[in-house]
Amino acid sequence: MAQRNLKLTLEYDGSAFYGFQRQPRHVTVQEALEQALSKLFNAKTKIQAASGRTDTGVHARGQIVNVRTSNPIPCLQIQRGLNALLPEKIAILQVEEAAGTFHARYSALSKTYEYHIWNAPVRSPLGGAKAWHIQRPLNVKAMQKAARFLTGKHDFRSFCAANSPVKNFVRRVKNCRIRKKGSLLILEITANGFLYHMVRNIAGTLADVGWGKLTADEVLGILKKKDRKAAGQTAPPEGLFLVKVQYPRQKNRG
Amino acid sequence: MAQRNLKLTLEYDGSAFYGFQRQPRHVTVQEALEQALSKLFNAKTKIQAASGRTDTGVHARGQIVNVRTSNPIPCLQIQRGLNALLPEKIAILQVEEAAGTFHARYSALSKTYEYHIWNAPVRSPLGGAKAWHIQRPLNVKAMQKAARFLTGKHDFRSFCAANSPVKNFVRRVKNCRIRKKGSLLILEITANGFLYHMVRNIAGTLADVGWGKLTADEVLGILKKKDRKAAGQTAPPEGLFLVKVQYPRQKNRG
Repeated sequence: MAQRNLKLTLEYDGSAFYGFQRQPRHVTVQEALEQALSKLFNAKTKIQAASGRTDTGVHARGQIVNVRTSNPIPCLQIQRGLNALLPEKIAILQVEEAAGTFHARYSALSKTYEYHIWNAPVRSPLGGAKAWHIQRPLNVKAMQKAARFLTGKHDFRSFCAANSPVKNFVRRVKNCRIRKKGSLLILEITANGFLYHMVRNIAGTLADVGWGKLTADEVLGILKKKDRKAAGQTAPPEGLFLVKVQYPRQKNRG
Repeated sequence: MAQRNLKLTLEYDGSAFYGFQRQPRHVTVQEALEQALSKLFNAKTKIQAASGRTDTGVHARGQIVNVRTSNPIPCLQIQRGLNALLPEKIAILQVEEAAGTFHARYSALSKTYEYHIWNAPVRSPLGGAKAWHIQRPLNVKAMQKAARFLTGKHDFRSFCAANSPVKNFVRRVKNCRIRKKGSLLILEITANGFLYHMVRNIAGTLADVGWGKLTADEVLGILKKKDRKAAGQTAPPEGLFLVKVQYPRQKNRG
């Protein structure tokens, strides 16, 4: 049987896992997925790659992984089988045949994240459980202005976790905007790549703009400083969602 | 200090509690609330009543309770204090002074519930976690027709849990309708009173209509039979939300 390269789309509730990547003595998304794959294929199976490793507490509505296997089970049955084997807090939304060259991480053109802020005096156990709760009223207009400054090709060193081993901090942010849905503020950001903690550092800095600690114009200065200490706090993980990963169009195999 | 009668509006995530009512050896909403009240008022405090006792797993966006106390702390401080003391999965949305005669249960004119169904082939850990997951596509138009038949004053014995001690099964359903929001079906039902498991039995019966086991017209016949065995299954608790309780307008005390 020829080798297949399967592209899987996953949704998960990050509050139930110790992040995506395998960890000793902790339940992770990768571990749960590889256990289910191995059981379904009746052979030890590992994923080749994920589009990115979400941290502990971070959610995904469209995480992508790819898996190489010679097992012939049709895609729809793989999806059903995995959903039956996986914990409730993970779902396989789609299983597709990908080209042999497809790699969930290296083939990605861009990714889209959302960061959710529940902006109301009182927490909401139902509406705002997966969001950063900020009680003080935020100035959304100022945050929207600052978000526009971050759009484009910039050196995002000021928004990268200080301990990152990365050398090139330039990323192209295709879209960075905030919309309001009742008490929920949704920051949506699409970029060709993300530095470690970049979305959470942007969300934390925009929150500082929202409550007047920073002006929108100062965010431009923060970008220019290329220094993590210049920007605001790191927003907590529970408000972050990996929403979508964009790949080049490709012909399906098979 | 004169006795005050406080009206509290609560939101809670039912998956975190063993129902509303106090139970030995289980964490309930009532127990958590009375512990917080007793701590805040520095005196053992019990609620007088809740609008109704939600079952294990059932959520509330607008549960109402009333509490009698002689403690003089202003309402806004009571709200803040309780929210600081309560578990994350409960929030106090409002604290108001009520008339001395106000009783959360006996004063209620009507209550509104929602029942959520996630109707998609695959579960959604983020979008459909608090809903009944039904994989087969449901015929929403037929369900909507059946829901209209349930509107009005009827004997709802067929939709009441068989073990209920109630004698009068007549209730006036002011509104019973279904709307669709992507994969989510939302049944909204307002009535002057609800029999035990009434909304979950209606939801289960409407689901039977949705997948063609029953016709909408047969639901009329089920009503007339006044027999629990005539109606459909009891839908699971995780899709049920107590949304709002309506009371007569009243002058505030104090």
